[in-house]
This record gives sequence, structure tokens and C-alpha cells, in this order.
Amino acid sequence: MIVRDFSEITKTQPERVVSDAKWSSVRMLLAEDGMGFSFHITFLEAGSEHTFHYKNHFESVYCMQGKGSITDLATGETHEIKPGVMYALNAHDKHILRAEEELVMACVFNPPVTGNEVHQADGSYALESA
Amino acid sequence: MIVRDFSEITKTQPERVVSDAKWSSVRMLLAEDGMGFSFHITFLEAGSEHTFHYKNHFESVYCMQGKGSITDLATGETHEIKPGVMYALNAHDKHILRAEEELVMACVFNPPVTGNEVHQADGSYALESA
Repeated sequence: MIVRDFSEITKTQPERVVSDAKWSSVRMLLAEDGMGFSFHITFLEAGSEHTFHYKNHFESVYCMQGKGSITDLATGETHEIKPGVMYALNAHDKHILRAEEELVMACVFNPPVTGNEVHQADGSYALESA
Repeated sequence: MIVRDFSEITKTQPERVVSDAKWSSVRMLLAEDGMGFSFHITFLEAGSEHTFHYKNHFESVYCMQGKGSITDLATGETHEIKPGVMYALNAHDKHILRAEEELVMACVFNPPVTGNEVHQADGSYALESA
């Protein structure tokens, strides 16, 4: 059994905290943990806008806190994001995520993120061997 | 892209809300959603105690609200559960989960739950074909 405390990880395992322009993410579970998925708590700054396109991963994102919107770039549809709303990128959907207020999200990736990926110019993560 | 609102599911998709003695769970993602994992928001009643043993699934559980503890029955170790704490059953660990206050948890199962499982006498879910 793995037991991890978000607030401890940020202090003792800084290598599990990643950040980029206007977002940061704490990797509670990575590929090396052997669960077959990774689990992240992700913060998006108030007023920020992000274009992501996970060509190689499925991702689900559950909003725990904050307010914003997501636009599906394939259809042009925009959905409100607020606590209790989840989106799932079941078709590797290219999307824009906007945070009106800081968003705090619980994210699941399949295949699991290894922790070494960086966002590429096209908004995707490359696949890495675990 | 799948977008689902927790509060809407409880009203419009009652088949995605399951409950048993002193817990209930809203299945935001099931096997049929094709993500390779399922994602549930689960409530455990204040004062309740649960013995679970997912012999056929890996599960991670992130505490969003409440207070309690988990005991790993293999080692006898007990860990505090509070917001920000996650446990991951990477060895199909048999465990007792106690809610001192109502616990609200974000749960991920691999393989994904189909929605038709019931807890068996041994605390496990049987594997189902999706």
C-alpha cells in the first residue's frame, strides 16, 4: 500500500512537483508506482488559458475548486468548469482550458505519466518508456 | 470529449449511483467510457467502518473532504486520512477504512469498473467483462 500526503510531497519530493507557465502539478502517482495510471493534483492560475492536446494519452480531469471553461477545438463547443464537473479526453481531444478563478483539478492519465514528459509545441506529451 | 457534472448525474443517471451499507458512489467514468480506468466520487458515512479487498483491481483513493483512517491488514499499520492524503492499493491490499467524519473520496480503478460489480463476501469486486 502506498500512502502519500499532498502537502508532504511538495516538501519532501520536489521532483514530483512540476510547473510550467501558469500551472503546476503534483504527481501523487506516476508510472513507476505500477498502478497502470498516473494521478495528479493540478493547479491552473486565475486568468490563465492553456491549449493541450494529449495525442498519446487518455486524461480525465475532475474539478475540485475554482471556475473556468473548456473548449473542444474539434466541435467549437464550450463547457463550464466548476466543482463537480469532470471532462474526459476519450478521443485525445485538442482543447483550450481557461481558468477564470484558480482551478484545482484531480487528473488521471492512461498510460501513466512517467514524470519526465514535457509539453511539446503541439500541446501533447510524448510517450516515454517507463 | 465527455463532460459530466456530478450533480447532474445524481439526478439524470441514477444507474451510475450505487450505494451499500453506509457508503455511496457516483461513477463519473465506467469501463464503457473507454478510458481504460474508471473514476468515482465516493462518500463514506461518518462513524462507518469498511473492510475492502480488491483482489482483481488496483485502486487509488484521494481524500477531498473528511477525516478517518486506513489500516493495512497485511502489516497492521494505520494511516491518517484527511484532505490531501491518497492511498493506492498497489498490492491488492486488504484494508479497513474508517470514517470519523464523512469522507469524500476521488477513486480510480484499473481495470475499470463496469458498474455491475457487487462487493462479494470477501470485500472484493469480481472481474466482469465490459
